[in-house]
Amino acid sequence: MQIPGGAARAFSFNSRRGLSTTSRGSSGLKINFDRLWETLHETCKWGAANRYGEKPTETGMARLTLTDDDARIRKWFADEVQKLGASLSVDQMGNMFARTPGKLRSSAPMIAMGSHLDTQPRGGRYDGILGVMAALEALRTMKENGYQTNYDVGIVNWTNEEGARFPKSMCSSGVWAGAIPIQKAWDLRDIHDPNVTLRSELERHGFLGDIACSSDAASGFPLGAHFELHIEQGPILQDTGRSIGVVTGAQGYRWLAFTVRGRDAHTGTTPLSARQDPLLAASKMIASSNDIAKRHNALASTGVMKVPSNASTNTVASEVTFTLDIRHPQDSVVHAVQEECLKSFTSIASQDGKGVSFDWTLDTDSPAVQFDRGCVGSIQAAADALVGPEKWMEITSGAGHDSVYTSKHCPTAMIFVPCRDGVSHHPTEYCSPEHCALGTQALLDSVVHYDQFRSESAGKH
Amino acid sequence: MQIPGGAARAFSFNSRRGLSTTSRGSSGLKINFDRLWETLHETCKWGAANRYGEKPTETGMARLTLTDDDARIRKWFADEVQKLGASLSVDQMGNMFARTPGKLRSSAPMIAMGSHLDTQPRGGRYDGILGVMAALEALRTMKENGYQTNYDVGIVNWTNEEGARFPKSMCSSGVWAGAIPIQKAWDLRDIHDPNVTLRSELERHGFLGDIACSSDAASGFPLGAHFELHIEQGPILQDTGRSIGVVTGAQGYRWLAFTVRGRDAHTGTTPLSARQDPLLAASKMIASSNDIAKRHNALASTGVMKVPSNASTNTVASEVTFTLDIRHPQDSVVHAVQEECLKSFTSIASQDGKGVSFDWTLDTDSPAVQFDRGCVGSIQAAADALVGPEKWMEITSGAGHDSVYTSKHCPTAMIFVPCRDGVSHHPTEYCSPEHCALGTQALLDSVVHYDQFRSESAGKH
Repeated sequence: MQIPGGAARAFSFNSRRGLSTTSRGSSGLKINFDRLWETLHETCKWGAANRYGEKPTETGMARLTLTDDDARIRKWFADEVQKLGASLSVDQMGNMFARTPGKLRSSAPMIAMGSHLDTQPRGGRYDGILGVMAALEALRTMKENGYQTNYDVGIVNWTNEEGARFPKSMCSSGVWAGAIPIQKAWDLRDIHDPNVTLRSELERHGFLGDIACSSDAASGFPLGAHFELHIEQGPILQDTGRSIGVVTGAQGYRWLAFTVRGRDAHTGTTPLSARQDPLLAASKMIASSNDIAKRHNALASTGVMKVPSNASTNTVASEVTFTLDIRHPQDSVVHAVQEECLKSFTSIASQDGKGVSFDWTLDTDSPAVQFDRGCVGSIQAAADALVGPEKWMEITSGAGHDSVYTSKHCPTAMIFVPCRDGVSHHPTEYCSPEHCALGTQALLDSVVHYDQFRSESAGKH
Repeated sequence: MQIPGGAARAFSFNSRRGLSTTSRGSSGLKINFDRLWETLHETCKWGAANRYGEKPTETGMARLTLTDDDARIRKWFADEVQKLGASLSVDQMGNMFARTPGKLRSSAPMIAMGSHLDTQPRGGRYDGILGVMAALEALRTMKENGYQTNYDVGIVNWTNEEGARFPKSMCSSGVWAGAIPIQKAWDLRDIHDPNVTLRSELERHGFLGDIACSSDAASGFPLGAHFELHIEQGPILQDTGRSIGVVTGAQGYRWLAFTVRGRDAHTGTTPLSARQDPLLAASKMIASSNDIAKRHNALASTGVMKVPSNASTNTVASEVTFTLDIRHPQDSVVHAVQEECLKSFTSIASQDGKGVSFDWTLDTDSPAVQFDRGCVGSIQAAADALVGPEKWMEITSGAGHDSVYTSKHCPTAMIFVPCRDGVSHHPTEYCSPEHCALGTQALLDSVVHYDQFRSESAGKH
């Protein structure tokens, strides 16, 4: 979607309304788009990389978690939220929780707007960053309008969401949710320097906090809700002409790693019938997994395939490894695709020459997630008021997000905005100013809506 | 084949015969197997690597061309042939020509027994080495028996056959044959150290000879014939129970390199219909090339496949490269397989999602080679006398050899002996003592037979 007349026009219809009502979904507050856009891109000076065009914003980002640049944006973020009167808590995974008081002065856990400030090594300027900057803009808008929510609201910057430097994605929301042991997360090693661990970098930058990384009310930092604005990272919104995706859950996925073993042999002297060719077998397996996924309307993808480094044109490889990523909104379909793949691979392994052997591991098992109906309802109401029912759609997240972990311990939902051609994890990743603004406004409105819904619900009890 | 009773018994039937006759194919000379075996393995101290068993000979070899270890075996080789009364010539590619005079004192080019002393980095003790050591044993046997051929005979040690350190295989026989410009060969860079060239290493070790690397009679070192004993490097002799392969030629082969381009995309968020997945397309192409080769009774092999180093489980790769090695004894079949593959790949490129693009290069084009009928006939006669007609077979070489280049400029043929399970280019590469001995005896007998045939032919003119 392109909104004619730029961001300011996009929100003009709100200006005629008063303060929000729950039924309408609009908070009545208007975000300052210019401030959002400037803040987002100004802070990208920390980590800007991989220029692809001449405009100042036409670079990607390489702000890997807990690097010096990540420490700089973290310190900047701490300053900014404290200027807004927020109190800042840092837990033992470096997760940063900024909390502003609500009118009720309730000790109940805050309503959080969360995402992450770290990026992939060849990432863009929106994945994660938009979610945190939008949250900051929402707080700024409330502050300058003198608007106070009923319950405390705030922001979370989750550490190492990308898992690009310390290889575990959604790492610290995972620890917070009790899904990843903290010692395991602390011990993760920099993929380029085994002497550096995630914990040693937390210590070096002063982000090894005191409070437990946990949703436990006594020792950790529980949340009352978690709203996350994120670029879609896929083409569905763009292709269907929608500007907001109301994310109702996340598809289930399993990551399998296969090792196919054969025997190295000279390609000129070894008859096909005498070969054990793992690259041929792996190729057939990959093609077969795609067929099987299509039949189930699921996704099956191989992103990595490796042959030994001494491979050569005239040698049959001895061993090939490849990954398989299976996804579907229903876990039962993920399991069915896996079962059919394993059956097919077993057959392929004996098809050519003297056959190959293979084994596999299940490296990640992420069951499908349903987000909270209350949170989803608040986002629907906000989206309806903001763009009308034709311009938003329900969508299932295809990627993993911190929200998948928070949903285990607090009501959670997400807002998607389109990104150009669905591209992410790439320097040219792009979310238009209009969509950044719409997403931020939707985030603010959803949180306000949810806060009212929460206090009304509490009043009924 | 296993010959009961060990090597000595294998040749006992020869001891009852007198000196050779052309019709029989046996020279009557008996190689000294113990000396061959000891010499071969004793000199493997220069470059022994990658131990795989407890016996002294249970290591592989890493004698890359023109390394210090290769210089040591070259100096040793120079000494040994000179002890036998041979004159040694070294050409500008470091090819070593040892020549012993025949009875005729003819100035005609010598009958050569040639192969190479360099190995792969994870090579074995037989590929190339056996051919040179067998040639040396043949000369030693003739010398100690006071046997003199009619024409001059000798040995060639070809430089950089493997192309493992300086990436051009059959490099110096290629220069000798006029197929590779010498400057291009000299300029080849060490794959691990771009400051080192093949020429700088020739100079460092004193192997940059004065004579032209050429078959030209005026400036170079022409050959009257070239016989090469080599391990088969395939399983055909073992599988068919033969102990000698009479190599009638080399199959044609073409090496193609493909680059398939798509678009990186998130595996969780990108519908299959929106993808441009080069790894899926490449997998289907590899499977298809195998189908096509099978239909033509040809070979098609992919040894190398590469995805970008930043590939990850949850990202569709942006680009994939793979190699395709097509072989058949008839060039027309090689061409037909290539054409069908290209047609099939074009179809595959548009099959899935939004399609991929691909391009390709022809990196090597080695037409099929027919060896000289006279040389082949001498080897057949020798093999017949040595093991009887049931134990040898005609075979086409699947691999490239220096003999492929020499065949352009002199009558050439090769002798194959089985290697265990067809394994070569691997530390465990193994040729039994019996087969080493049989091959060496066949080499000696063939050369003697050919020398007699040559002088009889000359007499008829």
